[in-house]
Amino acid sequence: MQRRSPTRRAFLGSSALAGAAWSACQAPAPESTADTASTGTLGSPVSRYGQRSPFENATRGVRTTLTPEAASSRTPLDETYGIITPSALHFERHHAGVPEIDPANHELMIHGLVERPMAFSLEDIKRLPSVSRVHFVECSGNSGGEWSPAGAPNVSLSHGLASCSEWTGVPLRILLEEAGVRPEAGWILAEGADACLMQRSITLEKAMDDGLVAYGQNGEAIRPEQGYPLRLILPGWEGNTNVKWLRRIKVTEGPQYVKDETSKYTELMEDGTAWIFTFEMDAKSVITRPSGGHSIGSPGFVEISGLAWSGRGKIARVEVSTDGGSSWSDAELQAPVYSRAFTRFRLPWEWDGAETVLLSRCQDETGYVQPTRALLIEERGTKSAYHCNRIKGWRVAADGSVTSAEV
Amino acid sequence: MQRRSPTRRAFLGSSALAGAAWSACQAPAPESTADTASTGTLGSPVSRYGQRSPFENATRGVRTTLTPEAASSRTPLDETYGIITPSALHFERHHAGVPEIDPANHELMIHGLVERPMAFSLEDIKRLPSVSRVHFVECSGNSGGEWSPAGAPNVSLSHGLASCSEWTGVPLRILLEEAGVRPEAGWILAEGADACLMQRSITLEKAMDDGLVAYGQNGEAIRPEQGYPLRLILPGWEGNTNVKWLRRIKVTEGPQYVKDETSKYTELMEDGTAWIFTFEMDAKSVITRPSGGHSIGSPGFVEISGLAWSGRGKIARVEVSTDGGSSWSDAELQAPVYSRAFTRFRLPWEWDGAETVLLSRCQDETGYVQPTRALLIEERGTKSAYHCNRIKGWRVAADGSVTSAEV
Repeated sequence: MQRRSPTRRAFLGSSALAGAAWSACQAPAPESTADTASTGTLGSPVSRYGQRSPFENATRGVRTTLTPEAASSRTPLDETYGIITPSALHFERHHAGVPEIDPANHELMIHGLVERPMAFSLEDIKRLPSVSRVHFVECSGNSGGEWSPAGAPNVSLSHGLASCSEWTGVPLRILLEEAGVRPEAGWILAEGADACLMQRSITLEKAMDDGLVAYGQNGEAIRPEQGYPLRLILPGWEGNTNVKWLRRIKVTEGPQYVKDETSKYTELMEDGTAWIFTFEMDAKSVITRPSGGHSIGSPGFVEISGLAWSGRGKIARVEVSTDGGSSWSDAELQAPVYSRAFTRFRLPWEWDGAETVLLSRCQDETGYVQPTRALLIEERGTKSAYHCNRIKGWRVAADGSVTSAEV
Repeated sequence: MQRRSPTRRAFLGSSALAGAAWSACQAPAPESTADTASTGTLGSPVSRYGQRSPFENATRGVRTTLTPEAASSRTPLDETYGIITPSALHFERHHAGVPEIDPANHELMIHGLVERPMAFSLEDIKRLPSVSRVHFVECSGNSGGEWSPAGAPNVSLSHGLASCSEWTGVPLRILLEEAGVRPEAGWILAEGADACLMQRSITLEKAMDDGLVAYGQNGEAIRPEQGYPLRLILPGWEGNTNVKWLRRIKVTEGPQYVKDETSKYTELMEDGTAWIFTFEMDAKSVITRPSGGHSIGSPGFVEISGLAWSGRGKIARVEVSTDGGSSWSDAELQAPVYSRAFTRFRLPWEWDGAETVLLSRCQDETGYVQPTRALLIEERGTKSAYHCNRIKGWRVAADGSVTSAEV
C-alpha cells in the first residue's frame, strides 16, 4: 500500500495533519460489500442500566495478598481516555476493606471545638449548596517502585494508584460554619466508618479552603470503594487524607498523631529523621500511550499521549522527548486545564522504526519542575518510599515493543 | 431542635452561607457513641472492576413496547450529579437494537467523492491525533410530551432523552483530509452497522468543523448502546445524526433524503409544509432537583439545581423563578461552561412552606432565549413533535410534594 513520510513539522501544525494517517491506513474496502453488508438481525433491546462491551477487558491491577481487605488495586491508565477515570476502574487502597453502608443509617457528625455539635444525614447534606469539581486522588505510595532505575514495567504498576473524577458535594467550610468553629481550633480529625475507623489529622486551613464532602462521583452516587455514601475530598493532598466513608469530623487545636500518620505516610530521611504531614502531591507526568507492554506495530505516525497532574495547582507545561532526553518538544495540553486534576497531554510523532526512549517532564503553575530520579534521591535519599514523582521513561524497540527504560 | 430563617440575601452571598443548614440539621449525636462505634468486621476486598452500591437503584426509564429493539430509554436526570451522565444511565434510542460488534472485525470506510477511498481499523484510528470534549447528545424527540400544558410528570419523562459525556476520538476532518475530499462535495452520508444500517445526511461543513469519530466515553471504551466501537459525534446536533456503530461515510454532492430524515425527524408546520434538516438543538433548561415525584420535606433551605444546554454554543445565563414567574433570579453556573454541553446551574432557596411553582429559563451565547410553550406554539404550531424546548414548571405543594405545573 501507499505510504508517505511527512516531516515532524508537518504534524506539529494542527491544520497540517493531512497525510499523517497514511502510514496507518489500510487498503480500501470494496464499495460493493460496504453498500450492502448488514448484521441482518435485530440487536439487543434497551436496558435499565448499561454494561460495557464484552470485548472490553480493562481491569484494575490486583496483587495476590493474604489480606485483600488491606490492599490496593491499580487503574490501567493506558486503557483510559481523556481525563475522567471510569469509576469502575478508580484505584483502591483500603485498610480494612470496603464497608457496606446503608445511607439511610449513615450520619456525619461534627464536634470537638465547635459551638454547636451537629449530625447531618444524607438528606440534610443534599439540601445544602453543592459544587462539582474535577480532581485527581493519588495514593502517596503511588510510583513507589520508581525509586529503582527501571521502575515498574507498565503504567498500571508505575502510576496506577492515581485516578481522576468529577466529584460533587458540599464544601466542608459550609458544614464547619454551621457548627461554629471556635477560635482556638487549628486542625480537624477526619474519621471513616470502615472497620479500622481510619483517621487523619488535617489543617483547618485546608478544610476551610477547598475541602469537599462528596456524595457524587462522575454523575452518580460515589462508589463503595471510593467512600459511599460520603468521602472527604482534599484536592491535591495525598489520597489517604481523602477519608472514605466519612462519619466524623472532630475540630481540634492541633494534629492528633494517629496511627495512619505516624506508622505510615511519613518519609524517612537519610539522617534518620522523618518528614510528617507531607500533604501535597508533587507535580508528576507519565506517557500512557505508548507505554510498557504495548506494541506500536509498524513505523509511521503515532500519537504520544499521557497524563500530568500537580497537588499545587494547574499543570503549566508538559515536555516530551522522543530521543531519550537529547531534545524536548512541548506537548499540547487538553483544554480546559483544571487545578489539581489530571491533564491530558498529546504530541504527534512519526516513528522511524529505530529504537528510542520516550520521556515526559511536567511543570506546574508554581514553577515546580518534575525531577529526574537522580535529583529526587539527591534531595530525599533512598529511605523514603512515598511521594516518588521522578521522570519515567519508556523504551521503544525496533520491533515496536515498549518496555520500561532506566533513567 | 433549634432553627433559624435567614433572609434570601443571606444565601445569595456565597460567603454568607452560615446558618443556611440550620433548617437541615439534626439533633447532635452523643460523642460517646461516635467515638467508639465501628462495624467491627472487615469489609469487602479490592476488586478488578467495581460496581455501584446495592443501595443505589437509579435506572433508565423504559416503556413496555412490542419492539424493545426500536425503542428508547431515559436518563433519570434528577438522580445524576454535576454534568457527566454515568455511561450506564446514558439515554438510548435505537432503531434496530444494539449490535454486538467485535472491534477486531470493525472498519470505518470513507468513500464517494474522495481521491483515495480508505478503510480504517480501530488500531489505525487510535494511532491518529485525538481530542477529548464534553458534549451533550439529545434526541430531537426529547420533551415531545411538553407540547401539552402540564407536560410529563417527572424530569426523566420530560427531558431524559438527553445525556452528557466526555467523548474522545479523532476529528472527522483528519480522516476526510486523508481520503482527500473532492471540490464538488457538499455533504456526507453517515451509516451505522446496526441491522437497519441507520443513515443520515450531514453537511460537509459540520463534518469538517467539529465532527468527531469517538471511541472513548467517560474515560473508557464507548458503551455498546452508544455506538461501540465507533460513534459519530456532531456537537449540538440532534441525536439521530450522531450515528452509532459508525461503519461508513460516503462523501456526496447533496443530501440523500434517506428514510430517517424523511419519514422521521422532520417537523410538520400548520400550513402542511415540513421543516427538514433541523439539525441544531435549541437552548433548553430544566430544574432537576427538586422536580416531579420528589418531596422536599420540611420547610427551610433547599438548593435548586438543574441543567441547561444549547446546540449553538455556550449557555450564557440561566434564570430561576420560585414564584411562578413573577420574579426571576440569576442562577450560578458551574464553571467551566463548555460549548454544546450540559451546564449545571444552582440557586439557593429558602422554602417558606407555601405552595409555589419553580421555573427555569436559559439563554445561550447567541442571545437566543428559551421560549414559553405559548411562544413556541405561535412559531411552530402544534403539528410538530420534535425540538420542544419550552420552559418547564414544577409545582411545590404545601406538603413538600412536587408535580408538573401547567405553564
